[in-house]
Amino acid sequence: MSTLENGREMYAWAQDLFPICRSLTGNGVRRTLQYFSKLLPEMVEYEVPSGKECFDWTIPQEWNIRDAYVLDEAGRRIIDFQTHNLHVVGYSEPVDKILSLEELQAHLHSLPEQPDAIPYVTSYYKRDWGFCLTHAQRMRLTEQRYRAVIDATLQPGHMSYGEVFLSGESEKTILLSTYVCHPSMGNNELSGPVLATALGRWLRRKRRRYSYLILFLPETIGAIYYLYNHLPELKKNLLAGFVLSCVGDERDYSYLPSRCGDTLADRVLLHVLKSHHPEFTRYTYLDRASDERQYGAPGADLPVIPFARSLYRHFPEYHTSLDDLSFITPKGLQDSFDTLSICLNILEYNERYRGVYPCEPRLDKHGLYPTTSIKGGYSQYVTELVDFLAYCDGKFDLIDIAEKIGVSAERCHLVAEKLLNAGVIERMQG
Amino acid sequence: MSTLENGREMYAWAQDLFPICRSLTGNGVRRTLQYFSKLLPEMVEYEVPSGKECFDWTIPQEWNIRDAYVLDEAGRRIIDFQTHNLHVVGYSEPVDKILSLEELQAHLHSLPEQPDAIPYVTSYYKRDWGFCLTHAQRMRLTEQRYRAVIDATLQPGHMSYGEVFLSGESEKTILLSTYVCHPSMGNNELSGPVLATALGRWLRRKRRRYSYLILFLPETIGAIYYLYNHLPELKKNLLAGFVLSCVGDERDYSYLPSRCGDTLADRVLLHVLKSHHPEFTRYTYLDRASDERQYGAPGADLPVIPFARSLYRHFPEYHTSLDDLSFITPKGLQDSFDTLSICLNILEYNERYRGVYPCEPRLDKHGLYPTTSIKGGYSQYVTELVDFLAYCDGKFDLIDIAEKIGVSAERCHLVAEKLLNAGVIERMQG
Amino acid sequence: MSTLENGREMYAWAQDLFPICRSLTGNGVRRTLQYFSKLLPEMVEYEVPSGKECFDWTIPQEWNIRDAYVLDEAGRRIIDFQTHNLHVVGYSEPVDKILSLEELQAHLHSLPEQPDAIPYVTSYYKRDWGFCLTHAQRMRLTEQRYRAVIDATLQPGHMSYGEVFLSGESEKTILLSTYVCHPSMGNNELSGPVLATALGRWLRRKRRRYSYLILFLPETIGAIYYLYNHLPELKKNLLAGFVLSCVGDERDYSYLPSRCGDTLADRVLLHVLKSHHPEFTRYTYLDRASDERQYGAPGADLPVIPFARSLYRHFPEYHTSLDDLSFITPKGLQDSFDTLSICLNILEYNERYRGVYPCEPRLDKHGLYPTTSIKGGYSQYVTELVDFLAYCDGKFDLIDIAEKIGVSAERCHLVAEKLLNAGVIERMQG
Repeated sequence: MSTLENGREMYAWAQDLFPICRSLTGNGVRRTLQYFSKLLPEMVEYEVPSGKECFDWTIPQEWNIRDAYVLDEAGRRIIDFQTHNLHVVGYSEPVDKILSLEELQAHLHSLPEQPDAIPYVTSYYKRDWGFCLTHAQRMRLTEQRYRAVIDATLQPGHMSYGEVFLSGESEKTILLSTYVCHPSMGNNELSGPVLATALGRWLRRKRRRYSYLILFLPETIGAIYYLYNHLPELKKNLLAGFVLSCVGDERDYSYLPSRCGDTLADRVLLHVLKSHHPEFTRYTYLDRASDERQYGAPGADLPVIPFARSLYRHFPEYHTSLDDLSFITPKGLQDSFDTLSICLNILEYNERYRGVYPCEPRLDKHGLYPTTSIKGGYSQYVTELVDFLAYCDGKFDLIDIAEKIGVSAERCHLVAEKLLNAGVIERMQG
Repeated sequence: MSTLENGREMYAWAQDLFPICRSLTGNGVRRTLQYFSKLLPEMVEYEVPSGKECFDWTIPQEWNIRDAYVLDEAGRRIIDFQTHNLHVVGYSEPVDKILSLEELQAHLHSLPEQPDAIPYVTSYYKRDWGFCLTHAQRMRLTEQRYRAVIDATLQPGHMSYGEVFLSGESEKTILLSTYVCHPSMGNNELSGPVLATALGRWLRRKRRRYSYLILFLPETIGAIYYLYNHLPELKKNLLAGFVLSCVGDERDYSYLPSRCGDTLADRVLLHVLKSHHPEFTRYTYLDRASDERQYGAPGADLPVIPFARSLYRHFPEYHTSLDDLSFITPKGLQDSFDTLSICLNILEYNERYRGVYPCEPRLDKHGLYPTTSIKGGYSQYVTELVDFLAYCDGKFDLIDIAEKIGVSAERCHLVAEKLLNAGVIERMQG
Repeated sequence: MSTLENGREMYAWAQDLFPICRSLTGNGVRRTLQYFSKLLPEMVEYEVPSGKECFDWTIPQEWNIRDAYVLDEAGRRIIDFQTHNLHVVGYSEPVDKILSLEELQAHLHSLPEQPDAIPYVTSYYKRDWGFCLTHAQRMRLTEQRYRAVIDATLQPGHMSYGEVFLSGESEKTILLSTYVCHPSMGNNELSGPVLATALGRWLRRKRRRYSYLILFLPETIGAIYYLYNHLPELKKNLLAGFVLSCVGDERDYSYLPSRCGDTLADRVLLHVLKSHHPEFTRYTYLDRASDERQYGAPGADLPVIPFARSLYRHFPEYHTSLDDLSFITPKGLQDSFDTLSICLNILEYNERYRGVYPCEPRLDKHGLYPTTSIKGGYSQYVTELVDFLAYCDGKFDLIDIAEKIGVSAERCHLVAEKLLNAGVIERMQG
């Protein structure tokens, strides 16, 4: 792995971007995409007009917010968007009203079980407005007249997203998809786009067998719009894909399979987690909740699975103000970079092989074998060679063989290179 | 479920029919069929002449019995067919003989391990005669001259059986097959035909997607004769079938798979038992012992499995006088009716579905989704909707999906109806 | 099983052959083949010239040894080939040198963990020389001048092997392959060729449905040369094969599957071990280390697995002087003969069957069934009949059915014969 794209750099990007108020649409998304496009010059930014239809969906109106607060009778900002953008329900319509406490309560959201956390709430598809606050603060509200002000616009505009395409030797493509629609939260979701950017910077400079598509999307509607425009080419070319989300903490990795659990994305991630992070948590397809739902829907059926440490919904900080910059770390981001880049490397060199001879080759002749045999059998090194050879039948690929012989795919790759160089195996075409 | 076909009604029919001496053939079978035909006017009664060949088998001679007893020297009926028709070996040839105790013993059957039970013994395919009695009574027999009288006829006649065909919208057919050849026993086998009759009365009045074939047969030879005449059409049209036997007690249900364990009959019954009666007992195909042996023989290979509570041979009362009207109950019969009618309902609405859109539909637009998202994820209701949608790939049927998402097929049916009405999924043809 | 080919006879052959110094090539192999050819007159001995190429391999030079020893300054033979032929590294080149202890040590091999065992060491494919001795003896060597003499020839000659082909009614062939390249060791490997010879003597006198190929080979290069000349016909005709090695001790049997674990050889051996020697040890394909590596290499992919008791490499005596005539026994050899001949018998009569009738046949009509039924169900005998019938679908073979119904293949064979004689099943063609 390059030492340039390290965790500290990713963390610094997250620090820069944390204060921005992002949502499905609006200037927060644009500023975020502009930031990433400086790091990834191949990025193309798209603007899709509100009202555009895609499958069962419609591009929503654009939401922008300048300020929002609740004033008490003394004129104090007792809830203030300026202190934390989670205080406003995402996509709140503009409002300026005087309300009793009871009327105000109908527009407040808090979490009794986590009394010090501000929840993250949105109302994308129904016009509404509201404020979020800690339950501790809510309990302290007294009977009086309040003034609720949301200085926002919700009107026809555009949805913004970014696309990076890095062409490789083959049109076959690997997808990294992530979100740019979350306001000030760290793991879900600044960790995903900063990891995608770091991987993009690494990929753009390296020799690529495959092409790479990196998408910075508003969740759900962004993926659906992309599928609406690109499904046939994705069906044709997509080898494997990962939805990057919640990848900045230091907790165990998650494996959430595709619908049938047998795609190349499943196989490579499962192998890498088993060999590098065997303490990972297994989920089922029923736990899916991110854009893999769109990519993997029966009608799309693309080989895309989540790449996550603590899985969304399964960590207590999820969708609250507790998911802040202290929850993600340079070390967590770095390790996620390392783990996913191992997966990508394995995909790059994953092949099927066929032995050149019907029997075993004579390894010593090719410099691959100790010439004096003694009780105790082969060294580990020779065992790996002969075990690898035993499965070079043109059907199993490198990941299959790695699983069968209990050796990591990275080591198998070294073994395969030795055997290829010695001329005793050959790559299968196609 | 209709409340008309309830357990008390079934139990009353069993009470009416209990005293009749049934066997493979004869007037007992005819009287029993006539009784059921009044309840099920669609029933057609068939008479097949003795000697008719069918595959490896021959329709046997007809057996009718008027009286049978063993007299002691004092002229007392010490074994008396009039008190219980199990006292005579089924298909006993006529006899009137004076015998020593030793000679008589050669014709007696009793159960040392169940000294108070009269066993049920038949000799269908070898001319013989005999009496059955409790072992306690047998132990009390003394050395003296006995007169054994069996006033029966065993001569060319007919084998009787009943067939009910209820045509549906489709020629595809579901089979319910049961026995009318057992003398006075309750669970094995008045429970089967009374349940078949109750289901028939329920089915005849309802809208039927599929056709239903209900057979009231003498065991083995009846099923074989039916296959002999109808195998090609059954091969063409039979979707699933159940052999109803031992369905009147209140003990746990049994699941005995088909030979390969993967027919639609297996899948629906296993799903319903798992979701409604998870304490059921699993058997293997090696335990099979009823007409599923003929329907499922390799040459017929029809998708037919037993439907049973306590499986034949596996309850102590089996094939003895202990299997009487106290062993079956209205509650047991009612529950069997409910369980099998759930299976039939599921078969009626079992379909494969395909999503209309390549991605997920926008549920809120169709009134299927709460519009404000908050931490904690979906309600159970929405989870069922989206999980169901995730498997609408045109290949999985409703039962498959129910198993995959861990929701009962009945609930899945409601979900499917909602999604169909919303226009976001469609039924697969054929 | 014949009582002529018994364990005592096999053991006596091993006693005769034990002193001979065998290696990959040379007169020791020739004398050994000549000995076996007197017992198996069908044996054809082949001589392949050194330098002949086969796939990636080359037939090696021929090695013959007359004498070898290490003299101390007093002229005593402190290591002496005449006392045990394991004292010389196999394929040592000729040498006559004066050396210091340090120089000598570079050519010595011993086993610190087994200080009383002489190890078995070879250097087939790199010219070298050396002596093997017990570690105890090595520890007693003192600083002095030693003279090392190996009176051997290593020069162009021939590789010898023996082939026995016993033609059967069918060209379909069963392979028994074993080694004749090991010097004075008992289990690995005189047990293999003496068992192969005993089986050959039994097979040559019996009616054979299948043809049998018995190969007495130098390990690895012998199998590779044979494949080089015969692979197309083996691909066409080979039904199943076993590599006989380590079959003379009395320890548990081993099962080491083929690469995919599903060949006929796997199925029959696994069935016989499960039913006759359920305490056997299961290995994985990764443990393979004998000629099954060549026969089963992806390019050959022949259905050949090891037949072994203590698996090579997995018993402490392996490849040392402890593997002597006291480690193998007449009883061990006899039991191996019995077990493998059961496998061969089963292969001979293994068939697929189809019921003549679509339903069950009427067993009593064919004398196969008790005619009076009574509670308690069938006898074991009838259960086996009807269970066997239930799987006569033309797809399952006898071994499959034996596994499915939990009855040994030998008993299933008796059942099948009864059913065939009764005309209720028929054999599938081809």
